Amino acid sequence: MSEFWQDTSIEKIGDNLWRGQVSERWNVGTVPNGGYLMAIAARTLREALHHDDPLTITGHFVDRALNGPVDLQFEQIRLGKSVSTGALRFVQDGVERARFTATFGDLDKTEGESWMLEPKPVLENPQAFLKTPRFLAIHDRVEMLFDPDKARWMKADFSGKPEHLIRYRFRDGTEPDVLSLPFFADCVPPTVFAKFGPMGWVPTLELTLHVRAKPAPGELLGRFLTRYLINGLMEEDGEIWDSEGKLVAICRQLARYRASTSFL
Amino acid sequence: MSEFWQDTSIEKIGDNLWRGQVSERWNVGTVPNGGYLMAIAARTLREALHHDDPLTITGHFVDRALNGPVDLQFEQIRLGKSVSTGALRFVQDGVERARFTATFGDLDKTEGESWMLEPKPVLENPQAFLKTPRFLAIHDRVEMLFDPDKARWMKADFSGKPEHLIRYRFRDGTEPDVLSLPFFADCVPPTVFAKFGPMGWVPTLELTLHVRAKPAPGELLGRFLTRYLINGLMEEDGEIWDSEGKLVAICRQLARYRASTSFL
Repeated sequence: MSEFWQDTSIEKIGDNLWRGQVSERWNVGTVPNGGYLMAIAARTLREALHHDDPLTITGHFVDRALNGPVDLQFEQIRLGKSVSTGALRFVQDGVERARFTATFGDLDKTEGESWMLEPKPVLENPQAFLKTPRFLAIHDRVEMLFDPDKARWMKADFSGKPEHLIRYRFRDGTEPDVLSLPFFADCVPPTVFAKFGPMGWVPTLELTLHVRAKPAPGELLGRFLTRYLINGLMEEDGEIWDSEGKLVAICRQLARYRASTSFL
Repeated sequence: MSEFWQDTSIEKIGDNLWRGQVSERWNVGTVPNGGYLMAIAARTLREALHHDDPLTITGHFVDRALNGPVDLQFEQIRLGKSVSTGALRFVQDGVERARFTATFGDLDKTEGESWMLEPKPVLENPQAFLKTPRFLAIHDRVEMLFDPDKARWMKADFSGKPEHLIRYRFRDGTEPDVLSLPFFADCVPPTVFAKFGPMGWVPTLELTLHVRAKPAPGELLGRFLTRYLINGLMEEDGEIWDSEGKLVAICRQLARYRASTSFL
């Protein structure tokens, strides 16, 4: 069975109440990855809102999440025919760890104009992309291959921009879908590692993901960039493309950068 | 008295409950501007959360707001020493029109590294910026001057990108502050007007604003760009700079573009 689907499974245990399990398999050190938590939330919101696709989902990460059970408390904001909106409290040991707010819809029924400023980035030499050491639990779940030109930080060259270009996929062969995009939006190393070195703690305060299309099978390509780090507050903007060249999601997070503490 | 401060004033009328008034002075046609609603919400959240500055605030606009009274129902998510998080229901006639979720902090106490990819855009000829016709109530509140190179759509030339570069400020002389930034994030014409013509209805589904600094007195400069319009779903990304060259906020909204309907 797919690790991702197993570890995001939920059970309805009451009115507007679901129960999930936060697995250790998606940890960064001792902390569960925030995108993984958002994926659990998105799976719950799909059931609760009766629409398949998270057009926009925002997570506020207010307290450290734990490995173990989680109560997922749903609140309906508006049910509509084409889109519906709700909130979800992510509660462990009686403490709200994260709040998710989302509008779901149905991408198959979405119609209208299309126009793009840029196509999917062309990779000149995808075979040259770099593997990283596997030292976190999350690295055993997802294979990430880094554009060497942007990953000079891995060789202690910090002259580049805080930017990653990453080919990635689940190691167990699970194909990406809209509910895994929250994970792919947050599983990459902090962009600032490329500028300041792979040290420091970069906790996410808030993450917003806009899903635009259902990903085709195959690997994803993620581009992540930080433009403005101001007094330790930074955004991390991402675009995620599928194997067929479609933009499937954009994301932005607000994070704090604490250079002085060790990453682990 | 400042129009903005008058029209965003709130009164505490109960436990976790405030009352506001949605003025017609900030309407786009018959609909109150979403950024104005977010400014009312931000003012309430500042009082409720006991921190001055919206580090990140997200609004989900689920139903058409009305001119007239609004009940602002606050829910605390987490109170902390450096940052606090809460949600606010924007309720009119018993119907929730918008949901705001925000983390507030204190920018004066925020410390850490700073680095920017780009400085404030340099204006080669700010005197050549174009005024627009004043045909909406909101145009009487804010003066917007458009970079003519990006505003060729005003002369029916749609060969440019969906991008604006705008000098703007309150007409009554009110100086910008962090609580007015939600308004400046949403008061500009839809970017897609520059690409497809000033027609169509572009309702905001969700808007997220990250505030990075307190604006200095004087006019603001806003740059807004849409990169991906897919099946009628688009993001609108903005950066707002103050008169001293500081980046004061970035914002992103998810909107639907309906080309077939008239703007008004």
